[in-house]
Amino acid sequence: MANDKKLVEAITSMDVDFAQWYTDVVKKAELCDYASVKGCMVIKPAGYAIWENIQHELDRRFKETGVQNVYMPLFIPESLLDKEKDHVEGFAPEAAWVTVGGNEQLQERLCVRPTSETLFCDFYSRDIHSYRDLPRVYNQWCSVVRWEKTTRPFLRSREFLWQEGHTAHATAEEAEARTIQMLNVYADFCEEVLAIPVVRGRKTDKEKFAGAEATYTIESLMHDGKALQSGTSHNFGDGFAKAYGIQYAAKDNSLKYVFQTSWGMTTRMIGAIIMVHGDDNGLVLPPRIAPTQVVIVPIQQKKEGVLDKAFEIKDVLSNFRVKVDDSDKSPGWKFSESEMRGIPVRVEIGPRDIENNQAVLVRRDTHEKLTVSIDNIEAEVEKLLDTIQHDMLEKARAHRDAHTYEATDFDSFVKTINEKPGFVKAMWCGCQECEDKIKEVTGATSRCIPFKQEQLSDKCVCCGKPATKMVYWGRAY
Amino acid sequence: MANDKKLVEAITSMDVDFAQWYTDVVKKAELCDYASVKGCMVIKPAGYAIWENIQHELDRRFKETGVQNVYMPLFIPESLLDKEKDHVEGFAPEAAWVTVGGNEQLQERLCVRPTSETLFCDFYSRDIHSYRDLPRVYNQWCSVVRWEKTTRPFLRSREFLWQEGHTAHATAEEAEARTIQMLNVYADFCEEVLAIPVVRGRKTDKEKFAGAEATYTIESLMHDGKALQSGTSHNFGDGFAKAYGIQYAAKDNSLKYVFQTSWGMTTRMIGAIIMVHGDDNGLVLPPRIAPTQVVIVPIQQKKEGVLDKAFEIKDVLSNFRVKVDDSDKSPGWKFSESEMRGIPVRVEIGPRDIENNQAVLVRRDTHEKLTVSIDNIEAEVEKLLDTIQHDMLEKARAHRDAHTYEATDFDSFVKTINEKPGFVKAMWCGCQECEDKIKEVTGATSRCIPFKQEQLSDKCVCCGKPATKMVYWGRAY
Repeated sequence: MANDKKLVEAITSMDVDFAQWYTDVVKKAELCDYASVKGCMVIKPAGYAIWENIQHELDRRFKETGVQNVYMPLFIPESLLDKEKDHVEGFAPEAAWVTVGGNEQLQERLCVRPTSETLFCDFYSRDIHSYRDLPRVYNQWCSVVRWEKTTRPFLRSREFLWQEGHTAHATAEEAEARTIQMLNVYADFCEEVLAIPVVRGRKTDKEKFAGAEATYTIESLMHDGKALQSGTSHNFGDGFAKAYGIQYAAKDNSLKYVFQTSWGMTTRMIGAIIMVHGDDNGLVLPPRIAPTQVVIVPIQQKKEGVLDKAFEIKDVLSNFRVKVDDSDKSPGWKFSESEMRGIPVRVEIGPRDIENNQAVLVRRDTHEKLTVSIDNIEAEVEKLLDTIQHDMLEKARAHRDAHTYEATDFDSFVKTINEKPGFVKAMWCGCQECEDKIKEVTGATSRCIPFKQEQLSDKCVCCGKPATKMVYWGRAY
Repeated sequence: MANDKKLVEAITSMDVDFAQWYTDVVKKAELCDYASVKGCMVIKPAGYAIWENIQHELDRRFKETGVQNVYMPLFIPESLLDKEKDHVEGFAPEAAWVTVGGNEQLQERLCVRPTSETLFCDFYSRDIHSYRDLPRVYNQWCSVVRWEKTTRPFLRSREFLWQEGHTAHATAEEAEARTIQMLNVYADFCEEVLAIPVVRGRKTDKEKFAGAEATYTIESLMHDGKALQSGTSHNFGDGFAKAYGIQYAAKDNSLKYVFQTSWGMTTRMIGAIIMVHGDDNGLVLPPRIAPTQVVIVPIQQKKEGVLDKAFEIKDVLSNFRVKVDDSDKSPGWKFSESEMRGIPVRVEIGPRDIENNQAVLVRRDTHEKLTVSIDNIEAEVEKLLDTIQHDMLEKARAHRDAHTYEATDFDSFVKTINEKPGFVKAMWCGCQECEDKIKEVTGATSRCIPFKQEQLSDKCVCCGKPATKMVYWGRAY
């Protein structure tokens, strides 16, 4: 039991130091490790298996909307990156540059892609000729590089994994519809699969993507009350098309520019899962994304029949992602370890249970125990996994709602931001000056102009001038 | 019909110019496109869908053997790459170097990974402590960069996609067993899924991987008689472990070095599929890897009931990857297009067929037509797909066998290599001098020392000294 205690004690309590708690969970749940290149990460099997489930589930949803996967090169020639002014200004400061290849100095430096709008535009300018070629609804799964100064595992790293969708359409309306459609795919995925409730809305001009006409976002709230931008979808209008010369022959044979979108979700969602659901015992994974949904822990496994029964139950539960922990560790150690790794349901089975034809189910999220007949165990586990998935979303939603505040004057706004970590809803005049001032005074940024607007007052919370929109504000990762 | 002819005519015949035929197929089947960076490629939806099927099928087979997926960084610090002498000598000449990040000159240049042995070793040196941590059987799916001088789509490009497995074991025996196990996974995959027969064997010391103790390979033969190295599996012994300090505490508490392997398969297999199975009408895809297995082409589709019947049949065939081509192109154009894209089975359905409750099935590989009752169509299509898969492997095997020659003296060896494209089996003394001479005189290299040895003579085909092994020789991609 000394060992069991050590495993748990090694984690800092989230109430004592949330940042340290996060780092401890990442490490103890074996999700990732630091790499020899500063700011890069090694994603370990337990972390990568979560990403594979995210990929699988998102990719399926994408394809249902007509998305096709492709692969674009890793490198962007500098002259290609330079073509769209706002875009290059946004990304050049964080670029990593290849200058030598095959022992020779390159004639033109190559940027390691920070995002691939420029590559898709270059390709589309050669690939799209006629209205028959539209729409193009392409996506790629890859890694991108942004030379960030301060980094944190999953949340902000110099290289991260993501998907980036890039589409081209005949009309502005169709591009806007696709932009919103993909935002909704992200939002539904977060809520249905990750059990993370999100606020859907539009970014202010100050916060939008470099080169976009409009950026839409889903924003989630972490346990510590800080916001996390969880997925974005951009409408580029025909700005990139004009910069890169992407035209098509319309039905009347006139040449027209295409309208484009892009949208992405990244490995930072693993960070979101940790920070929304985790507790002082470690990771807590929603069943739909958990690489292992059920772990069976035999008690007194050396006694005859115990291990056999454990594997028998594993067979019965083969519709789920299930494992038997038959290692030579103590049951207590196995309990701690399965909790640290966030496995949603633990099945305990020992000689006494076998005698009574029963097993004990333990919920990771609430620690509740449930004794069930082995005869019904498949149905009971299925029901329990559904309940956990549902309850985790509702718990996260309740936490988010309890940490969403309103402010109608600047003093109470500042006081709320400083004293009550969470979202603050407040009216805004639409000027960047007020956004800048709010950031300067409080460190909070505009998270989004939510689709669901409320009229909290008719004045901007900052300058008092007439308000045009209600905005979610908060400090963010 | 003029248009239909144009589509087909646009392809160079493979007998006239095989290289141009290959390029034409890659382009007309819309598999990939050139990128703005020389030697890199854009993998288009039709090509990437093949890669996704390869990934899916290989990944499943890997996981059945206990492989876990991870992700290592894109960059290797120069000092890390330098640690294993043979390895760095093999890869440094083709390296691409990042020298600038975030507007600053880096203190140490970073190599864009050409392969990740060094990164896995660095990680394992921190991750492995005890015999309980072994074996480590990790794999990653990613892209790698090698600054090649001459490039060809899929076959040799400056960036390509692959998987690379990297394992660590307690004993040399276990490492050797894993090396062979993964070679067999590759070989079975090639034969069962890609319908490409392979020769399994060991590379000579001259041809082995930089830093390996032994490299095993599967070699396939393209339609033009040139060989293609299709997958390799390397046993590193404890060489990397000593260079990178990867030690574990054994049961008796003594410190021991681990034994390592690595193994990889790449997007060049898409090139192999093209060059083994393709014909003058374009791509021919084995059913098990084809993104679309069945295309339904309605004849006189504007006549009442025809399109309805086509979609009805599509529903019946929903166990397969099936599409209806209801575009406004002519049937002849649709036939050519589906042949170009290599779709294994075409279903033709018109008013006369509907009257007779029948449909016509056309095989892509043999162009044979088969009239079947619509009532049996699911069973007929299933049988036909199985037959095609089987026949394509046998046809490729027959071609390979018919182009595998033997030579027992140097003159006939040279004559065979020069006049009969294919593999030449010949005895070898084991000296690199003979390999060098053969390459100099004929351009052929040793492809492998096959596991299935034959005693063709007792003298080396080159120097006449006592032979130790039979070797497959050939010109290669």
